[in-house]
Amino acid sequence: MDKAQRLSVLDDLIKLETVNGDEEKVANYLKELFEKNGIETELNKYDENRYNLIATIKKGDGPILGFTGHEDVVATVDDEAWNYGPFNPKHIDGKIFGRGSSDMKGGLAALAISLIELNEDPDFKGNIKFIATVGEEVGEIGAEKLSKEGYADDLNALIVGEPSNSSSRLVMEKLIDSGLIETNGAKPETRIAAFCAHKGSVTYKVVSHGRAAHSSMPEVGINALDNLITYYNKQNEYFSELIKTEDDVLGTTKPSVTVLNSGKQENTIPDYAEMTVKIRTIPEYSNDKIIADLEEMIDKLNQADPRMKLEFKLLSSNWPVKTDINSDFMKLVRASYKDVLGVNILTVGAPGGTDASKFVQANPDLDVVVAGPGNESAHQVNEFIFEDDYLQYISIYKTMARKYFEK
Amino acid sequence: MDKAQRLSVLDDLIKLETVNGDEEKVANYLKELFEKNGIETELNKYDENRYNLIATIKKGDGPILGFTGHEDVVATVDDEAWNYGPFNPKHIDGKIFGRGSSDMKGGLAALAISLIELNEDPDFKGNIKFIATVGEEVGEIGAEKLSKEGYADDLNALIVGEPSNSSSRLVMEKLIDSGLIETNGAKPETRIAAFCAHKGSVTYKVVSHGRAAHSSMPEVGINALDNLITYYNKQNEYFSELIKTEDDVLGTTKPSVTVLNSGKQENTIPDYAEMTVKIRTIPEYSNDKIIADLEEMIDKLNQADPRMKLEFKLLSSNWPVKTDINSDFMKLVRASYKDVLGVNILTVGAPGGTDASKFVQANPDLDVVVAGPGNESAHQVNEFIFEDDYLQYISIYKTMARKYFEK
Repeated sequence: MDKAQRLSVLDDLIKLETVNGDEEKVANYLKELFEKNGIETELNKYDENRYNLIATIKKGDGPILGFTGHEDVVATVDDEAWNYGPFNPKHIDGKIFGRGSSDMKGGLAALAISLIELNEDPDFKGNIKFIATVGEEVGEIGAEKLSKEGYADDLNALIVGEPSNSSSRLVMEKLIDSGLIETNGAKPETRIAAFCAHKGSVTYKVVSHGRAAHSSMPEVGINALDNLITYYNKQNEYFSELIKTEDDVLGTTKPSVTVLNSGKQENTIPDYAEMTVKIRTIPEYSNDKIIADLEEMIDKLNQADPRMKLEFKLLSSNWPVKTDINSDFMKLVRASYKDVLGVNILTVGAPGGTDASKFVQANPDLDVVVAGPGNESAHQVNEFIFEDDYLQYISIYKTMARKYFEK
Repeated sequence: MDKAQRLSVLDDLIKLETVNGDEEKVANYLKELFEKNGIETELNKYDENRYNLIATIKKGDGPILGFTGHEDVVATVDDEAWNYGPFNPKHIDGKIFGRGSSDMKGGLAALAISLIELNEDPDFKGNIKFIATVGEEVGEIGAEKLSKEGYADDLNALIVGEPSNSSSRLVMEKLIDSGLIETNGAKPETRIAAFCAHKGSVTYKVVSHGRAAHSSMPEVGINALDNLITYYNKQNEYFSELIKTEDDVLGTTKPSVTVLNSGKQENTIPDYAEMTVKIRTIPEYSNDKIIADLEEMIDKLNQADPRMKLEFKLLSSNWPVKTDINSDFMKLVRASYKDVLGVNILTVGAPGGTDASKFVQANPDLDVVVAGPGNESAHQVNEFIFEDDYLQYISIYKTMARKYFEK
């Protein structure tokens, strides 16, 4: 494709409004684009108007490399605050503005175009499975469905096109200084990076059931809040042990109690209390182990006190994703950037989750890199992507694929 | 007044809808009734449509006895569930049904009629100040205003006509067994009782201010909830000491954390948390001491940790009310019941608050008894009062007043 065609694919995707829903717009657009270019596709229905899309090229007998990105975007927050509207892509001073430009229609378009161009390349002998998902921003629900259905089982490696660049080296340094991006002490030479790892998460509620009573006779009731705080204190002891284990790239597990609600009337002993906890996890202390530990803690508290009735409700478990920073795959990633951009990039650990959490849960041996042209303007008003970054990542993805199948 | 007149005063009062507001309906009704019977009155404005009423008879140079009751009633909860509607008094099998019949238009009417009949009695030589208040059910706001304005300063003793009867001796025994009514071991001979004491209360919020952050970087924020629970744990240590002090009639202080809210999103470190606490208090550990202790605790926590920003917000402080169970005044109370009913009643401690909390705050030496014809159906659907109880209390109040001025 020429530059104008490449840019128009991204513009077309930004125009499709896929805020947590209606992802069939993107799935159908890419399906048509792939089929016009001789690539087989499969629609995978998640729900009404919500389709994952799988496109495959098979040009050899070796391993399978995955390309993946999501079709949905986050809410626009405040349409009035966007200089040109959220779904009206504008090219200004080398930037393309629009919701999803960075996160991640830029990465998705670059991966799709790479697939088409690799398919057209008679010298390319690899196998690539392109996977576009619904609902990444609301629980990685599309990737979860595909993983359960076996779509990740035959993958050997995976490139996730989520934004991994920064808009400037200063921003990159700030992100590193703040601890958001973990480099294990390495200094960035550029604003470009790829992620070899990101944390997982365990999100859950703990509910406490008690018995209401008038506050003049608290002993007639069971204060659900007091019981929940008894649990909170136990959990705190557990967390203080949990955070002692450290991953070389991702740092420590990070637990936070983020919501707690109990009681409605100052005069009534509360019969219900619930808290929400979010734990950012690392591979060294697995999600399943944490969940089992918490459930055991709750069982013990319930058994020790007949007035205690606590309940554990798992909301989500997204696995941490990690590929060894010195693995062949990561060397190949760094070499690809060097070939295309002429710079040494950092491969780092990032906090946020991606669909890869679901894919590695089905296929734990998968090599994964998160690498995409977007930047930290993701989720913001006036989100943008640099035109050059978008175009360069097409070359980077193609180079990665070529190197992968040269092995 | 004859029996029919006495009953019609109560019916009239029940018909006046004074659910937390519009108390001028009752104030105006009583004002007219008193003035028709030659008793001076004074309206005291609390707010639009909300008036306290004071009526005074002065027939001697001695002390002043107060009669007090409130004009408001609690919400009807579910109008459909009332057999005859909440404001449609019905006389059935010796019961009068209607919102406020027990709490406390029965007591208010009985006190008002007693005042009129004592005024008409040439042999009665005492001084009585009758005080009807607004908003007792929502913070004793009318009594608070009157106390601040000095209306309680010249009182020597006070009869509060709040419901102190039970509907049966079995109920009375259950209330005693449950700890709601404290008798210090004495057994009831009857379903009739008077309260020589009731607890006070301190109600407050503790607010914790933090700093929001994404849950992937909790250390960038300040978790307001974690800080509030640090306070909760300190407070619990304090409470475990507080409840060691016991009053012979009222038992111990009873603290309860009844509401706690913090956080809105599972993904965000909460920047705000607040809890509501209700402490039922006894004279031995004064409200002011408790408030000072809590404020000191919060100051210390704030000073010890720069990340801690706790705030104490007093919502209300209602003093405990207690008159010695063996005092001359309580002997006079018991003797009055004995004269009228021929039975020995218990004078007991009760949990609920009354306007007396405000009056004793202004005038701590006041002898107070809570004695009224209502029963435990107060605040319920199909609230009722026994006709006989209502009529008998007119005799009881008059006997108490006569004995008081015979001293």
